Amino acid sequence: MVMSEIVKLLKSAKKVLIVTHVSPDGDGIGSTLALLHGLNQLGIEGHVVIDDEVPEGFAFLPQSGKILRYPHEMDGYYDVAVAIDCSDEERMGNVKELYMRLPVKINIDHHISNTMYADYNVVDSNAGASAELVYQLLKLLGVEFDSDISTCLYCSLATDTGRFMYSNTTSITHEIAGDLLNNGADLRKIAEEIFEKKTLNQVLLIGKAISTLNVVEDGTIAYITVTKAMLDECGARPGDTEGLVYYPKSIDGVEIGLLFKEEDDRIKVSFRSKKVDVSKIAAIFGGGGHVLASGCFLEMPMSEAVEKVVQACARAVKDVH
Amino acid sequence: MVMSEIVKLLKSAKKVLIVTHVSPDGDGIGSTLALLHGLNQLGIEGHVVIDDEVPEGFAFLPQSGKILRYPHEMDGYYDVAVAIDCSDEERMGNVKELYMRLPVKINIDHHISNTMYADYNVVDSNAGASAELVYQLLKLLGVEFDSDISTCLYCSLATDTGRFMYSNTTSITHEIAGDLLNNGADLRKIAEEIFEKKTLNQVLLIGKAISTLNVVEDGTIAYITVTKAMLDECGARPGDTEGLVYYPKSIDGVEIGLLFKEEDDRIKVSFRSKKVDVSKIAAIFGGGGHVLASGCFLEMPMSEAVEKVVQACARAVKDVH
Repeated sequence: MVMSEIVKLLKSAKKVLIVTHVSPDGDGIGSTLALLHGLNQLGIEGHVVIDDEVPEGFAFLPQSGKILRYPHEMDGYYDVAVAIDCSDEERMGNVKELYMRLPVKINIDHHISNTMYADYNVVDSNAGASAELVYQLLKLLGVEFDSDISTCLYCSLATDTGRFMYSNTTSITHEIAGDLLNNGADLRKIAEEIFEKKTLNQVLLIGKAISTLNVVEDGTIAYITVTKAMLDECGARPGDTEGLVYYPKSIDGVEIGLLFKEEDDRIKVSFRSKKVDVSKIAAIFGGGGHVLASGCFLEMPMSEAVEKVVQACARAVKDVH
Repeated sequence: MVMSEIVKLLKSAKKVLIVTHVSPDGDGIGSTLALLHGLNQLGIEGHVVIDDEVPEGFAFLPQSGKILRYPHEMDGYYDVAVAIDCSDEERMGNVKELYMRLPVKINIDHHISNTMYADYNVVDSNAGASAELVYQLLKLLGVEFDSDISTCLYCSLATDTGRFMYSNTTSITHEIAGDLLNNGADLRKIAEEIFEKKTLNQVLLIGKAISTLNVVEDGTIAYITVTKAMLDECGARPGDTEGLVYYPKSIDGVEIGLLFKEEDDRIKVSFRSKKVDVSKIAAIFGGGGHVLASGCFLEMPMSEAVEKVVQACARAVKDVH
């Protein structure tokens, strides 16, 4: 069994490199920190090294300040490398160079598209989050689940399963979550920091974005547009548009919700669908993604981009009905 | 044990009345429907009777159309009455008259304030939702958990625990949720119908409400104001203001979030706090509620109400610091 080999490798490691993907999410940050805590508890040295910043929202996680940003001074000394939540090595960003040249490479992930790029691959697409696999690994390592580890892993589970409401949620997800609560996971802290906290600028941007809402094609397509000027007026950052596409998509009767966002010299389009395969629509414009969530970029003025994309969406909606 | 006596009573009942509170929530609707499904499966006749409408959002729950609104023609025939999620008999509305005069009264609830008004009281304030107790009862009754029952109870758990992120969530909550998923709970349907669906009018109202956002007192107090004219402009209903107070409250640094809503001849104020005891502030104005969530009514113009309430909140925030 691969897991038990990994346990042996980690227990005899001199120093462990722990990696997750760029644009790290709650599963990536929570799972890597949980493994770091666990190894430290066993007296095994390690570092979490990522090629990105830790998003502000996850700064509350125990010892997130210990996460190192690649490149840094310690990279020569690792003898075991663990990648968590990376479907392929490219997802690691530049840290992949460090990861790929280490003598022992471990890959722990739950993405169905995982390319099995490591020497030891623990990939289970039935897991609601990579954290479920890290949980199993920590159990096998004999780690005691303290509140720090439990909070990190609960954060991973809650974010990656949409607070236990995405279809990747299973009875195992719930079983682990229950165990983490028993071991002191601070779910209120997680809720406050991740799900209940916004900046003033983000809230102002929601209001301004909704003021641009348009519902067209018999109520089946809804979109909002965010210009650079709007971001400036709200004092918002580009990342603050995250989640805005939820508003048009959530409207009763809407099949496709769209967000058009003005960037330097192009329009970024986010598609969210209830049933229609929007990855095909995004592909028309050179983009891609998932069936119900995709995106593309258009190099043209906002009004033209809206017209072209809405037309393509309208055709797709009609094809379905 | 009370539970086993209840099992005997239900199994020998001729016809069971099942009741929940007015302004029914996901726990009330989901739990009563789950018990009804379970009894029907065992060939026991019963009715869910409530003194209110079933909120539109819960109409997707299996057989919610069977819920009867009090008063109706069948009220003379019940020999056993089960109240679920009612902390006292007043919470049943007018249906309490029917409930209280029946020969066998059962009370299943998780509110700490429960007054033990029945002949058989199963009250556990450690339960995340009344659904946890109904789950145990159905297990003891020997009911087979089909997807209908499982969906109803998962809906109860998810709504009453804030998608497993309120502090009432326990390992038992997760254990039950996992079992319900194994038995076919349709969590995506619940997510779509309850957490991801809004009317166009509701979304428009969010935008308009945020456009009134004010942050005062060094960023510690934020409020939005909703007038009757704004509701009209958005085609929104009074109930559509539900959740709006979340926006001011969610802002980083805000201690108290407020919603001022114009009603016929008064202003309804909703208080939400992160730490400050807002029930005391609401009480100054003749209102009340919980420590972190309370409300009151003021019979005065909007501007005056805002001034008075914000002043009281500012004093409370200063007292804390």
